[in-house]
Amino acid sequence: MTAAAETGRGRRNRTDRRAQRTGAPSSIEQLAVLDRNLADVNILSEEGLALIEENAEIICQEIGLNISEDAFAIQKWQEHGADVEFVDGKDDTARIRFPRGMLRTLCKTAPSSFIQHARNPARNVEIGGKKTVFAPVYGPPFYRSYDEGRRYATLADFETLVKLTYMSPALHHSGGTVCEPVDIPVNKRHFDMVYSHLKLSDKPIMGSVTAPERAQDTVDMCKLVFGADFVDQNCVTTSLINVNSPLTYDGIMNGALRVYAENNQACIVSPFIISGAMAPVSPGGVMAQALAEAMMGIAYGQMLRPGSPVIFGTFAASMSMASGAPTFGTPEPALIIMGMAQLARRMNLPFRSGGSLNASKVPDAQAAYETMMSILPSVGAGVNFMLHAAGWLEGGLVSSPEKLVMDADQLAMVHIMQGGVDLSENGQAMDAIREVGPGGHYLGCDHTNRNFKTAFYESKLANSASFEQWEIEGSQDMYQRANTRWKRMINEYDALAPAIDPGTDEALRSFIAERKGSMPDAMY
Amino acid sequence: MTAAAETGRGRRNRTDRRAQRTGAPSSIEQLAVLDRNLADVNILSEEGLALIEENAEIICQEIGLNISEDAFAIQKWQEHGADVEFVDGKDDTARIRFPRGMLRTLCKTAPSSFIQHARNPARNVEIGGKKTVFAPVYGPPFYRSYDEGRRYATLADFETLVKLTYMSPALHHSGGTVCEPVDIPVNKRHFDMVYSHLKLSDKPIMGSVTAPERAQDTVDMCKLVFGADFVDQNCVTTSLINVNSPLTYDGIMNGALRVYAENNQACIVSPFIISGAMAPVSPGGVMAQALAEAMMGIAYGQMLRPGSPVIFGTFAASMSMASGAPTFGTPEPALIIMGMAQLARRMNLPFRSGGSLNASKVPDAQAAYETMMSILPSVGAGVNFMLHAAGWLEGGLVSSPEKLVMDADQLAMVHIMQGGVDLSENGQAMDAIREVGPGGHYLGCDHTNRNFKTAFYESKLANSASFEQWEIEGSQDMYQRANTRWKRMINEYDALAPAIDPGTDEALRSFIAERKGSMPDAMY
Repeated sequence: MTAAAETGRGRRNRTDRRAQRTGAPSSIEQLAVLDRNLADVNILSEEGLALIEENAEIICQEIGLNISEDAFAIQKWQEHGADVEFVDGKDDTARIRFPRGMLRTLCKTAPSSFIQHARNPARNVEIGGKKTVFAPVYGPPFYRSYDEGRRYATLADFETLVKLTYMSPALHHSGGTVCEPVDIPVNKRHFDMVYSHLKLSDKPIMGSVTAPERAQDTVDMCKLVFGADFVDQNCVTTSLINVNSPLTYDGIMNGALRVYAENNQACIVSPFIISGAMAPVSPGGVMAQALAEAMMGIAYGQMLRPGSPVIFGTFAASMSMASGAPTFGTPEPALIIMGMAQLARRMNLPFRSGGSLNASKVPDAQAAYETMMSILPSVGAGVNFMLHAAGWLEGGLVSSPEKLVMDADQLAMVHIMQGGVDLSENGQAMDAIREVGPGGHYLGCDHTNRNFKTAFYESKLANSASFEQWEIEGSQDMYQRANTRWKRMINEYDALAPAIDPGTDEALRSFIAERKGSMPDAMY
Repeated sequence: MTAAAETGRGRRNRTDRRAQRTGAPSSIEQLAVLDRNLADVNILSEEGLALIEENAEIICQEIGLNISEDAFAIQKWQEHGADVEFVDGKDDTARIRFPRGMLRTLCKTAPSSFIQHARNPARNVEIGGKKTVFAPVYGPPFYRSYDEGRRYATLADFETLVKLTYMSPALHHSGGTVCEPVDIPVNKRHFDMVYSHLKLSDKPIMGSVTAPERAQDTVDMCKLVFGADFVDQNCVTTSLINVNSPLTYDGIMNGALRVYAENNQACIVSPFIISGAMAPVSPGGVMAQALAEAMMGIAYGQMLRPGSPVIFGTFAASMSMASGAPTFGTPEPALIIMGMAQLARRMNLPFRSGGSLNASKVPDAQAAYETMMSILPSVGAGVNFMLHAAGWLEGGLVSSPEKLVMDADQLAMVHIMQGGVDLSENGQAMDAIREVGPGGHYLGCDHTNRNFKTAFYESKLANSASFEQWEIEGSQDMYQRANTRWKRMINEYDALAPAIDPGTDEALRSFIAERKGSMPDAMY
């Protein structure tokens, strides 16, 4: 095996170095998308991969997958030569079986990597290959902070999380539903969410998937920012299509997928699996099912618009066999992710998985152990897009600003680890070893002085002070220190907020007002 | 790249399965030494490895390494053809320079792997190859528990930690100085420590290295347990020889190394490096220096007794460039460990590094993040012996029973992750996918029922209950739950304590009484 992780690369971009020189940051610090120099960890042999692929074909051909409440998609599949068996006496719900190899062949038109554009071109991200993009937590209805404890999330919390993501160098992507703003009617909150991302951040964004027309609203808002022609030819949103595992696509998800694919926008097609509930308890079984599920969604998007960008996704959790509760940061999902990453690579597709997953109620040791048992194997496996990379608590029920800044600090370290070893002359440091010699120390040697500022990652939250100093400073654990940190970041945000063209802002606001005015409030 | 991590292997040994059947354990649960099915992560190319090796040769040949206060070793090196330059006007302190390739050639007689015997043969461990042995924290003078906070450690604490290690399935080794029993005089405490390991546990042990005669006491006590002839032909102790980095071996460590090597007992020859203090700030520089240092100690042991067992070690930490404090669980040491593991593999030697390293004062999120950023890359790198694998806090100043049980829980998960994916017919679970089909659930299917007990690792400490249930149970974080757990384990210990032959026990006690009586108390 040859490994080539030896290129010394700058850890921060120029903006940051300029900021370090002048003392006061004039713009946010931003790490470039992670470029994985370490070799991807492979756990399945060629034979193992072929076996899983064969099982997935059997699932597609013999068992089939369901589409529920989507007559358009069923007709499309029928036209394309799939076997359609209507079920439950409905004309919009059917079991679809696919001729051998059909789905895999359809998937071949998808790009192996693509650029998602941000409204600030400096924040564009490449998704695929050896790149990994980190995006924040997605979906929790609750919000926990050190000050207030746990409560339902609001749009104000949503804005806080968008701002913290914007301010976090290791988060490359603004994400999507960083929490559910439950103070806004369900049928209208997507406007506020998309607007918050577009206005408060200039990083790439995710769109709404809770109804096809909300997906269309997302695309329409993006057109106001990027221009309609640009949106038709370029990816400006990535959205999360969860498969209704096992083996089912419902009309909402399939409908949103259709809107995005037809508009040339990226979807993460993601089997959502708690092993033992939505898939078998064994990783080998999960992989075959998830591969079949992902192929069907990806193939559907490619059928509608060949070449449109897509990400092969897998969300995997395990389960407490004592209580049935989902568990996170456990070894079995790590194995699933590593295997699925290999299967995605064999299809030449970008892969999404992992994240700061954990079942802990608070950002304690459990939260951190589980988060790292999820993030590190996922990065090692070679994920290209990591949703939930920061801020997740309590099995995804809770978003936490403290957890977000804690995780983001670790993600910055992952950048350095994946950067590999600098073996330049400076990296070899033979001058230092000659200068210091046996029995000396390196604290003041020339090499140390030359590399003083960039030698080690300086954690924003870890406390390495003496016990006595730590006591004097209030014996704070990391949860408390993270509370102090995120509130300082929010205070600093206003001076660093990304400017938005007033005309664009006005166009977005008018669009939202008009659309919101066209519908009554609804709670679904 | 071919990966072969697909063998379904039993997760627990027979004792455990018997215990599960009968309900009440009649003996402790013990995991077999970790067998790493995943491919080792390589970060250096052939060219990179050759460059580091060349730099290490330059260090050995041109810069040289010091021996201080060890006239015997200096004479040995001189006889062997090394260049000796006495320094500081002393006849027992010298700079030694080695002809090119001399050290590497001497190291060739060391075994690539070896068995360390425990007094219970079922607990013997293999050290080397694809095996990884986990041993507890080593060295802290302080002890922190949830109940008592932080204070100096005592022999009673030492015994608690030995018992908890014995009771922890994922800890294969009883370790050595699990804490410093500061209530016992320095020159006598090694008797109590070695006796505690031999009496309270039946797992393999580490010996004393704080003086050559204390190493000899360790060997003599082992002879009482295993028999003198057996000890001469088999490894029954592994002891930690820290290099006095940079590039110096002192008479104490070198003298203890001599005792163990001459008695055919294993040493971990381990450069102790806080980058920026004892070695350059750059990983590439650390690697060359540490390779030179390790080679000298390993070669010395092989010169004294060719073929005696030895472990190539590296302890690596980074440093806060703001305060000079050592930092742990950071990315730079992870890179050093991955590179050093490759260098050790090229020498066909077992490798030691990693551990539950962290700088946190309490077992909070910081402790857990840093621990995992140390343990996971180290296991991935292919370490064969992980000292400090559980129980470490505050940069190694503090041993913690809560942290020990928390870490041990994670180490059990590492076993499963490294076990790879079961692709047997049962692992593939196609029967389950056929049975459940689209839209169903797997909770009660036949496959789930068949695999109910072994499907997922059930954490001993993670809480996956609902928020409401967790609140009802007292809103305990993991630190608090770990406190409850280790005290229950101590309560259960007596019924599971390993029996010891009364004659052997009496011989050990007599030996200790006689030796202690022969010397006054001393505080160094």
